[in-house]
Amino acid sequence: MATSTSSPASSTLTGRKVGIDTYRENVVYLRRDCPVYRAEGFQALSKVAVSANSHMILAVLNVVDDTRVIGEMDLGLSEDAFAQLGIAEGAPVRIAHAEPPESIASLRRKIAGERLSADEILAIVKDIAGHRYSKIELAAFVVATTQWDLDRDEVLHLAEAMVAAGRRLDWGEAPVVDKHCIGGIPGNRTSMLVVPIVAAHGMLIPKTSSRAITSPAGTADTMACLAEVELPFDRLERIVRAHRGCLAWGGTASLSPADDVLISVSRPLSLDSPGQMVASILSKKVAAGATHLVLDIPFGPTAKVARIDEAQRLKKLFEYVARNMGLQLDVVLSDGRQPIGRGVGPALEARDVLQVLNNDPAAPADLRLKALRLAGRVLEFDPDVRGGEGVELARDILDSGRALAKLEAIIDAQGRRPFNWQRPTLGALVHEVVADADGIVTAIDNLRVARIARLAGAPKAETAGVDLFCRIGDRVTRGQPLYRIHATNTSELEFARHESTHHHGFTVDGSGAVPVDPFLEF
Amino acid sequence: MATSTSSPASSTLTGRKVGIDTYRENVVYLRRDCPVYRAEGFQALSKVAVSANSHMILAVLNVVDDTRVIGEMDLGLSEDAFAQLGIAEGAPVRIAHAEPPESIASLRRKIAGERLSADEILAIVKDIAGHRYSKIELAAFVVATTQWDLDRDEVLHLAEAMVAAGRRLDWGEAPVVDKHCIGGIPGNRTSMLVVPIVAAHGMLIPKTSSRAITSPAGTADTMACLAEVELPFDRLERIVRAHRGCLAWGGTASLSPADDVLISVSRPLSLDSPGQMVASILSKKVAAGATHLVLDIPFGPTAKVARIDEAQRLKKLFEYVARNMGLQLDVVLSDGRQPIGRGVGPALEARDVLQVLNNDPAAPADLRLKALRLAGRVLEFDPDVRGGEGVELARDILDSGRALAKLEAIIDAQGRRPFNWQRPTLGALVHEVVADADGIVTAIDNLRVARIARLAGAPKAETAGVDLFCRIGDRVTRGQPLYRIHATNTSELEFARHESTHHHGFTVDGSGAVPVDPFLEF
Repeated sequence: MATSTSSPASSTLTGRKVGIDTYRENVVYLRRDCPVYRAEGFQALSKVAVSANSHMILAVLNVVDDTRVIGEMDLGLSEDAFAQLGIAEGAPVRIAHAEPPESIASLRRKIAGERLSADEILAIVKDIAGHRYSKIELAAFVVATTQWDLDRDEVLHLAEAMVAAGRRLDWGEAPVVDKHCIGGIPGNRTSMLVVPIVAAHGMLIPKTSSRAITSPAGTADTMACLAEVELPFDRLERIVRAHRGCLAWGGTASLSPADDVLISVSRPLSLDSPGQMVASILSKKVAAGATHLVLDIPFGPTAKVARIDEAQRLKKLFEYVARNMGLQLDVVLSDGRQPIGRGVGPALEARDVLQVLNNDPAAPADLRLKALRLAGRVLEFDPDVRGGEGVELARDILDSGRALAKLEAIIDAQGRRPFNWQRPTLGALVHEVVADADGIVTAIDNLRVARIARLAGAPKAETAGVDLFCRIGDRVTRGQPLYRIHATNTSELEFARHESTHHHGFTVDGSGAVPVDPFLEF
Repeated sequence: MATSTSSPASSTLTGRKVGIDTYRENVVYLRRDCPVYRAEGFQALSKVAVSANSHMILAVLNVVDDTRVIGEMDLGLSEDAFAQLGIAEGAPVRIAHAEPPESIASLRRKIAGERLSADEILAIVKDIAGHRYSKIELAAFVVATTQWDLDRDEVLHLAEAMVAAGRRLDWGEAPVVDKHCIGGIPGNRTSMLVVPIVAAHGMLIPKTSSRAITSPAGTADTMACLAEVELPFDRLERIVRAHRGCLAWGGTASLSPADDVLISVSRPLSLDSPGQMVASILSKKVAAGATHLVLDIPFGPTAKVARIDEAQRLKKLFEYVARNMGLQLDVVLSDGRQPIGRGVGPALEARDVLQVLNNDPAAPADLRLKALRLAGRVLEFDPDVRGGEGVELARDILDSGRALAKLEAIIDAQGRRPFNWQRPTLGALVHEVVADADGIVTAIDNLRVARIARLAGAPKAETAGVDLFCRIGDRVTRGQPLYRIHATNTSELEFARHESTHHHGFTVDGSGAVPVDPFLEF
């Protein structure tokens, strides 16, 4: 957490926690009438170095005129900044001018379109992980490395640097397998099926997932309907040793912290950055100790990747970087034309998953099929499983109830939460969206379905979301329900209903044309 | 100030001014326990639309846990946000999810390396001027248009859009002349000489200047030692009509507001962006009603422009854009190898300027010569002044005392402040930096001189700065003072002294080699 500052002197103030959540950016607050403010020649939004307790952090300065917030000789610290310094309320803190981190010179070279060396990328990533970049500098890095602006070696160096800048787990055995999807497909909760299938087979699959940021549910949000997911790392490790797998939130493990910082600025810009995506995903997997990975790249008009040529190009980049990091990678290009399963939202997706595990006849067939195929690919990392036999093995584990038993064991180990999959509690306020005309469903817009589910309250309201009644190829008649929106309060129901009225996301073709067959293996 | 938002509903809260200065970014504060926070599904750093009083602004959300700052049903607004809404304390305000402005789609196209149309650039600039871009989006725009990433027509459209997005002055006569320097050379206060010379000749030169942002003094900071510079626009207009010129701060006139917003993020990155520089300077001049402009581009190893080929390329871009905006432009490439004049810092530079105007034998010859030559070029915009006679005319106006009389009249009109140019009050804490060896001064680092003057307190402490005793080509002996640092408090003196110890910015060559002649006309 140390940083360079050329100021020879600094000024001592009293540290005060100001309960303002500034997300990933450190902010400190100084009164305009504080003598240190004038003496140091600070400006609002200056970058300052704050030190206490033998730690130093960089922060952005906000200047406070309001006398209620902090005293004249206080330095207010946002919650994250306070935590990073590890001080007690009222402890002495020192503040000084901060120099931009040295790696900013490399950032400028990248902005100018030059190629960076491994050492330069490492220095940048360490500064990012150490919270030494401002939000503006982070945005500059994200934009300068967007699209295909990083060549494949730069992506490799970025991924390696992200691993080096954080903690790296070593499970002491191999293979350690994992399964990941690049995202963008609502309802696509295959991990919650793949993990118990693979763990039931005895392979080590310590799966940590993110919570949803822009989607209506992440695996961690869905699993949270069934069990605790925020576990201290040592407990997680014991669970994985005992049960060969887990389904937990990855935020507690400090893996690839630079990636977390970068995501805080890249998400709001929603840029298409293959290099950043590859480095982000592979660095997290390698840091988590994975040796083998099955990666799902869904593509389709409203998926993250629209066309097969883009999907192929992305696949090659993943393969190049993984190979050079020593990670065995099996990439699967899958059908991303529509949501997977029926439910979109934590509880709705948990219901779908448990229907599949319980071999319920009502279980969504597409979710089951996709999970079996992905699990089969993971199982084939086992030297004793013959090529092509993975899917059969996965089906056997699922149909026999062994996968369900494994998930139940993992749930008990993580800490069970009550959930009735046959009669799940869903948001009580509902609105049904119906077909405008007779015809065949020819397209479903993933982005709109996700947006409507989010407006309905998912994932924050875990019982909110969208329950889909049709898929591409289904014949519908005018007035027939396409999906039901669930919400837990009237304003959220109204947001979602209004959005669905604007455009409900389903294309119904009345000409009688049947859409072409799925162009892919799933 | 209107914006698009797709949320059908919004929630009413009580508006509270929170005395936190967030510079150019609107920030609003919402308590974590506020029911609206959860209902709307906001996150820290979400972009929200705040409306009241028939105005709407976009702002970034900070989530507050501290119960002292605002009440549970309050919406706290940073000072700038509060001012923009134009509401009274305690007025009802509505908050809703904000959609990214539509022009973000064009921004993404630019990030992807595409060429933007005039309409797209206009939409982006209007959104920027309306504070509808987040700091992250602004940084993205700045990076995507850096270097030579804008072609010359895009630069033209950017400049035109910046004019269209703000107020434009019309003086009702022509020519309206101006003089501008791209900056980067400490002590270079020629405007304070050019304006009185040109105004004394009777030409209209309504000069507004910026305050220093990264330099130790801007023209507005230096003029502020002699007179009021923050004048309401109508008063400024009366002064210009009466005296044919002024020397004021330009911030009150709302000219090219998009440029002000962009500068707030581009300065911290210190990127080299010719397109942004050209659009910024020319939009401000055209918006201020100028019809004729003399532009000074100093170049040298530590100037903004390092080499003559870069200076020539920049000159062509200025000429292309100015020509298409109907602005008569005369570009001067000047010697930027070292500071101009002796003083660096507001009072020190004001002293130099008044020495020149008073024909003091001690006046810095380089400042006098450069100002005469630039003033001569401006005077030649007068159809009655023959080509090549401008410098003679300028010298006559200066030597006769008419320029001094004109500056005195402008000072009285703007509001005189006491200043004794023969015995100016300078920062009482001093430190002299001496030559390490015998030899000839072969280089002076503009960046280090500026930095040392800033650390000494300039421009905030107006009597602080650096007083230079030598120029390139001077012979010095070991221990001879190179310059004196002036400061007003010990910690600032210590900052500057420490920096000068690290590297004082002067290169003294003991081999007896005499540096080559100045490569330029000044």
